Amino acid sequence: MADMNVFEQWESNIRGYCRLYPTVFKSASNARQVDEAGKSYIDFFAGAGVLNFGHNNEHMKKALIEFIQNDGVAHSLDTYTTVKRDFLDKFADTILKPRNMNHKMQFMGPTGTNAVEAALKLARRVTGRKNVVAYSHGFHGMTLGSLACTANAVFRNAAGVPLEHVVRQPFGCETRCEGCEMGCGTEAVDRLRAQFEDSSSGLEKPAAFLVEAIQAEGGVHVASQEWLQAVQKLAHDLGALFIIDDIQAGCGRTGSYFSFDGMGLDPDIVTLAKGIGGFGTPLAMNLVKPEHDEHWNPGEHTGTFRGQGFSFVAGVEALKYFDNDNLMTDTKRKGEVLKEHLQGIVSQHSGKPFQVRGKGMMQAIDLGDGALAKKVAQECFSQGLLIGACGTGGKVLKLIPPLTIPDADLNEGLAILSKAVNTVVEGA
Amino acid sequence: MADMNVFEQWESNIRGYCRLYPTVFKSASNARQVDEAGKSYIDFFAGAGVLNFGHNNEHMKKALIEFIQNDGVAHSLDTYTTVKRDFLDKFADTILKPRNMNHKMQFMGPTGTNAVEAALKLARRVTGRKNVVAYSHGFHGMTLGSLACTANAVFRNAAGVPLEHVVRQPFGCETRCEGCEMGCGTEAVDRLRAQFEDSSSGLEKPAAFLVEAIQAEGGVHVASQEWLQAVQKLAHDLGALFIIDDIQAGCGRTGSYFSFDGMGLDPDIVTLAKGIGGFGTPLAMNLVKPEHDEHWNPGEHTGTFRGQGFSFVAGVEALKYFDNDNLMTDTKRKGEVLKEHLQGIVSQHSGKPFQVRGKGMMQAIDLGDGALAKKVAQECFSQGLLIGACGTGGKVLKLIPPLTIPDADLNEGLAILSKAVNTVVEGA
Amino acid sequence: MADMNVFEQWESNIRGYCRLYPTVFKSASNARQVDEAGKSYIDFFAGAGVLNFGHNNEHMKKALIEFIQNDGVAHSLDTYTTVKRDFLDKFADTILKPRNMNHKMQFMGPTGTNAVEAALKLARRVTGRKNVVAYSHGFHGMTLGSLACTANAVFRNAAGVPLEHVVRQPFGCETRCEGCEMGCGTEAVDRLRAQFEDSSSGLEKPAAFLVEAIQAEGGVHVASQEWLQAVQKLAHDLGALFIIDDIQAGCGRTGSYFSFDGMGLDPDIVTLAKGIGGFGTPLAMNLVKPEHDEHWNPGEHTGTFRGQGFSFVAGVEALKYFDNDNLMTDTKRKGEVLKEHLQGIVSQHSGKPFQVRGKGMMQAIDLGDGALAKKVAQECFSQGLLIGACGTGGKVLKLIPPLTIPDADLNEGLAILSKAVNTVVEGA
Amino acid sequence: MADMNVFEQWESNIRGYCRLYPTVFKSASNARQVDEAGKSYIDFFAGAGVLNFGHNNEHMKKALIEFIQNDGVAHSLDTYTTVKRDFLDKFADTILKPRNMNHKMQFMGPTGTNAVEAALKLARRVTGRKNVVAYSHGFHGMTLGSLACTANAVFRNAAGVPLEHVVRQPFGCETRCEGCEMGCGTEAVDRLRAQFEDSSSGLEKPAAFLVEAIQAEGGVHVASQEWLQAVQKLAHDLGALFIIDDIQAGCGRTGSYFSFDGMGLDPDIVTLAKGIGGFGTPLAMNLVKPEHDEHWNPGEHTGTFRGQGFSFVAGVEALKYFDNDNLMTDTKRKGEVLKEHLQGIVSQHSGKPFQVRGKGMMQAIDLGDGALAKKVAQECFSQGLLIGACGTGGKVLKLIPPLTIPDADLNEGLAILSKAVNTVVEGA
Repeated sequence: MADMNVFEQWESNIRGYCRLYPTVFKSASNARQVDEAGKSYIDFFAGAGVLNFGHNNEHMKKALIEFIQNDGVAHSLDTYTTVKRDFLDKFADTILKPRNMNHKMQFMGPTGTNAVEAALKLARRVTGRKNVVAYSHGFHGMTLGSLACTANAVFRNAAGVPLEHVVRQPFGCETRCEGCEMGCGTEAVDRLRAQFEDSSSGLEKPAAFLVEAIQAEGGVHVASQEWLQAVQKLAHDLGALFIIDDIQAGCGRTGSYFSFDGMGLDPDIVTLAKGIGGFGTPLAMNLVKPEHDEHWNPGEHTGTFRGQGFSFVAGVEALKYFDNDNLMTDTKRKGEVLKEHLQGIVSQHSGKPFQVRGKGMMQAIDLGDGALAKKVAQECFSQGLLIGACGTGGKVLKLIPPLTIPDADLNEGLAILSKAVNTVVEGA
Repeated sequence: MADMNVFEQWESNIRGYCRLYPTVFKSASNARQVDEAGKSYIDFFAGAGVLNFGHNNEHMKKALIEFIQNDGVAHSLDTYTTVKRDFLDKFADTILKPRNMNHKMQFMGPTGTNAVEAALKLARRVTGRKNVVAYSHGFHGMTLGSLACTANAVFRNAAGVPLEHVVRQPFGCETRCEGCEMGCGTEAVDRLRAQFEDSSSGLEKPAAFLVEAIQAEGGVHVASQEWLQAVQKLAHDLGALFIIDDIQAGCGRTGSYFSFDGMGLDPDIVTLAKGIGGFGTPLAMNLVKPEHDEHWNPGEHTGTFRGQGFSFVAGVEALKYFDNDNLMTDTKRKGEVLKEHLQGIVSQHSGKPFQVRGKGMMQAIDLGDGALAKKVAQECFSQGLLIGACGTGGKVLKLIPPLTIPDADLNEGLAILSKAVNTVVEGA
Repeated sequence: MADMNVFEQWESNIRGYCRLYPTVFKSASNARQVDEAGKSYIDFFAGAGVLNFGHNNEHMKKALIEFIQNDGVAHSLDTYTTVKRDFLDKFADTILKPRNMNHKMQFMGPTGTNAVEAALKLARRVTGRKNVVAYSHGFHGMTLGSLACTANAVFRNAAGVPLEHVVRQPFGCETRCEGCEMGCGTEAVDRLRAQFEDSSSGLEKPAAFLVEAIQAEGGVHVASQEWLQAVQKLAHDLGALFIIDDIQAGCGRTGSYFSFDGMGLDPDIVTLAKGIGGFGTPLAMNLVKPEHDEHWNPGEHTGTFRGQGFSFVAGVEALKYFDNDNLMTDTKRKGEVLKEHLQGIVSQHSGKPFQVRGKGMMQAIDLGDGALAKKVAQECFSQGLLIGACGTGGKVLKLIPPLTIPDADLNEGLAILSKAVNTVVEGA
Repeated sequence: MADMNVFEQWESNIRGYCRLYPTVFKSASNARQVDEAGKSYIDFFAGAGVLNFGHNNEHMKKALIEFIQNDGVAHSLDTYTTVKRDFLDKFADTILKPRNMNHKMQFMGPTGTNAVEAALKLARRVTGRKNVVAYSHGFHGMTLGSLACTANAVFRNAAGVPLEHVVRQPFGCETRCEGCEMGCGTEAVDRLRAQFEDSSSGLEKPAAFLVEAIQAEGGVHVASQEWLQAVQKLAHDLGALFIIDDIQAGCGRTGSYFSFDGMGLDPDIVTLAKGIGGFGTPLAMNLVKPEHDEHWNPGEHTGTFRGQGFSFVAGVEALKYFDNDNLMTDTKRKGEVLKEHLQGIVSQHSGKPFQVRGKGMMQAIDLGDGALAKKVAQECFSQGLLIGACGTGGKVLKLIPPLTIPDADLNEGLAILSKAVNTVVEGA
């Protein structure tokens, strides 16, 4: 058995996932992780959506080793480096130009929360306003500015100070969730518009609307296109910025590079992190419309690790997957496999209030019960499948394997999941 | 000449250091960076204090390549991995045990600001209080919670919302800065104590005192030992946490692992980042006394990039430098070389209000004038030396070369600096 | 013509009503005010709802003169005085006991805003929570705590600091206002309930719901009974306090002592001011359920003018009007006269989007246009009628004459109003 | 014995002074109050500084009765009335013109806290800044904006939300209080200046400095002239407003109309309340320099009870006391009597850390112990003297009799106090 004493003795009590997966991982490759005892696990979690291109992607390994051997500039703050130019170039050519986007790329401390903080600062600067509209079940990070926009009470309660300057609205799911009475949809946007347009409503006009096109941590809620368009229109009618947080759902996860591709949206800022560095090395980047970007003064939002050579190198390799449609076509196909399998589980347990939600290769089954979901995830772990929970009280199992997962692993993982649900439901 | 068009077209206006160093860096080794035109620069900036062990440290390169080739777990959230255990083990053995420290190690999003945010959350949780005492010229990060503790108006003005819950005090410099009338020293601590002890003073008792033993970004102000002890005592008398932010000054920079070693201090939390990952790859870690750490609930302060395999691997190599006293002895020696050289510059320009401050290999010359300092840094750049400015208006040139810099590079760099000062002063 | 130079020279630019009524008033009696030129005005404004029992009410004059002649204690802080006991006794006997209310009476600085601030403090103390749910078009005062609950942007913009700790909801009008799309009614309460009950909604449970049964300053919006009951139920289900601000609508204005009488409500706190002192002298009082009141520590919310002898004396006289049903019966009758007359105006101008709203002797005509309403009020003034505007942009003319207004004055005033509307509409 | 059941049954638990003076007062005249049992008390408290001209001042009684009999306008919002013009005229002639002050007079809700809130709003409007510098032991009111400036923890703890936007400084006493180590005096102003002038100090430039020339509730601390001048100079150098809160110390209390007369000060705003209405009826008024006043938009800071006829009428009578020097000369003389007597008490108890502080007829003896002070006040009450405590923990007995107190009452009251101190000290 793996030696976990060192962790128990020296690591903070705050450690979390290690409690769900009580072993020590030694190596990993594509959609597999292997622990010190040699047991192999299929990875349906992919580092919480970071490893879209698999663990230790071979193209990236090769490029990274060569970069190291050639003394590439691993750390550069925001000076210019060859590999940063390569990344900018590749991102512009592959992602921005085909979409007629002329957004500027801004690097900051390489965490998603830092990207959100930078976006909020800029929106407040541009508009001279303070409030941000954020959504129920939204997740945007752990530092005070982004945490104010995060909805989950567990995280909010850790702040220790009031979380301010946020107006909270219900999220516009494409399908109404069982039992949800928050009143989502475009009607909610209309109501909010009426409030903002009446100077006696008590609501000051906002600096920004901050929205995920798919709420990942919040429980895999997929926004409807018409709702997103309504939110964007309201933002622009009010002179506010429309910001899409695509940190977990972007980088190809949903079957297109951005989770909001093809929805007729034109966000003022897109926040990116997680998958963008390709290899699991940190990187965060905001895409900012030039007319907003020019409000930044040089150096106003700094960060030691803004220039990450490894992430630029591996990130370029990741972008090459978008040179043609192969990966995205495959992602959509595998996404359907996931969805159908989950719907099969729902059918099998028709007496239970299970629901399936998702898009592309972010699919989820909402078990309606956090304790149940935890037991299923534990059973999966013991059977060799890594799967994570999300949503209120952790009642939703989220399936986000590497996009590059082999079909065999995908199917084996799904079989483990089905069996685990059966085991737990029957044992309950 | 280097092609910088891509940056100008696509990168955000917020980019900063690239304006001071207008070239494109291609490779780097120990204390040297080389641009695309082949010009070599001596690096007195070391990634803002990250690269204590030099660019592309050979031990680390070897370990990293081996790690990649063996499919090590590069990204692990907060699951257990072999390399994380190696790091915990090595840090405990090398740093904690010899100091009789039993602090727990907490990993978070791998940026310094995230470490500070986590520390503030915990201090507020432990004490049930909100306010934090922070210091003039202090620098603690860019996200809203840490930014509230950062003193510099340029950064604060970018927040767009009021920065709350901070009581600001003058910093306790070991030597009074020319012209400073803020009233630092232990008298200031006594006055603050009197205010906190009078329930009609209007000051609520604080959750924490957040202090740097050396303010790096703030202008290289070195705190006196007696002042730090007085602050710690006041914190503990008030039931508040004493937090040392050692993000830039730690990891050997000042001639010992912690900047506060040997000062008779016992901080409740130490925040670390920058140098800890060794290679310039991101890592952040708080050291937290067990009695405080137990107030964390699992998973309350999360972060995608908490488990960074590369940084654990290179970080272990960095810690090996502390197996014996060689590096620290050499650091003190080179620190003296730096200080003496800077004092020589002061002597040469006795009509100017120049001052030298620093400890170990963080030495600085305060030129009293930001425009002057900028010109000197630009002249250095053109002569092949990378040097950065800090302090109010950027009036202080900070010398923080890799600790591993060869003497030849050190001396050559200092010669360039001397000449640049002469050139600029004479040309003024 | 009246000499207004002294005001123009020495009084602050903030003065307001004097610009609508550009004359100097010398005396007043019941529903008439007389200016220095001897011109008599019918008063449909009654000091913004203070003078329910008329200017210089004869019973009160007599009682006040006697009180002064006998050296009664005019100012007493919160010491016990004979006249304060008289007031407490009379209020308990006349108002509380018949309703089986056992609320405690709390006096504070004698302004409505102070009453609201005290209520918010207590709700936060009792619940240990911070946020308050307040409503669009709500008006609760000008000091920072109550101003945060006030909706009107003109007042909010004067704060100069962010107004925090308030969740804003649409008000539940009994009839949907023309063009209002905020989505009021019990459905809105259901939606809010769903948000509060989901720990991932991003909304912390509130300390209190602060509501007016009739929004006076906000534009005379009358809440539906079912909505008020739904709000009260939600408050209690969440462990929050249900607070009714009855400062302008209470004291008999709507045909019963409280504006919410007979609605099956049981508020935790009722805030009172304006009419309670009877004569126009200041007084403010909260009614607080004993189980909440006991959370106060003696002297925690002080105020120099808490004990106002004149207001206690005149206030007792005011309470005598509630010894029998005469005044309230008459108030309902006159309220109908007002309402029917206003509806007649609407009928006469069927091409205009005019609407009538109100309850008892707080009736209003919403002209849908602030500039129009101002012109009508000015025309009324020139014809000898004092009438005030309220609502967003001042588009609503509010009719709140003394409850004791003679029918002749009432009818004459209404005739002036009708004619003024005609004049202005035709002249437009 | 007085019947206090009604109060106990119906009045809020928050009632305070009635616990110190457990009787029911029936009448009052000049410096005497009489309870229902016929016991007469000498009043050294004067309604917390309101009744500078005595209870039921004969001139005022006459004027008030006449005003009532003539149907004067008792309540007028901010319309023009004859008696308001009389007051403006008299105040300008008597107080402003002789001092070459051209301040505008602003009326608001008739409480001191409302005056402070209005002053803060305007200072923030004028400067576009948020923070206010306020002082240890300062008292400015109970509503959230003014409460943030109030120092006493008992009051602050009742807020239930964080109190923001205030920078706290030590007060500049003319004599250093025994044991106080806060570091007051002009050196503190110099230190603060250094902080404000360094853009990296972490302190944003303030909107205003809010100061009492004598802190009444805070424990009768008298500011030194040089400190006040230094604060005013710093305010003006920083573009901030210099606001003097003269609510308790103004209106002749200290031997001149303003407590800061003759000190070479020129405040941007003076807040007044308490004594200004003369008779104990509420009134509050700010004096605002015209160049600041013009930043107000009409009606931005409203209040139902702004226009108080009784207070204007009695207030004019009060102002007549300043037509010549008689009252102020007498006030200084009696102030000396008070001070000398208190110093005599100190001499008698030389083993105790008693101290005397004060100016004019606001004199105090600091007993250094709240429990002791309470016992003395209780003993005084039983012997027929009303005296109140202030300062941290209520350790300071404050003597603020009506300025019009007869010498006989003054001497009798002082004799009671001396005896009570002896009784309590000996009994301890």
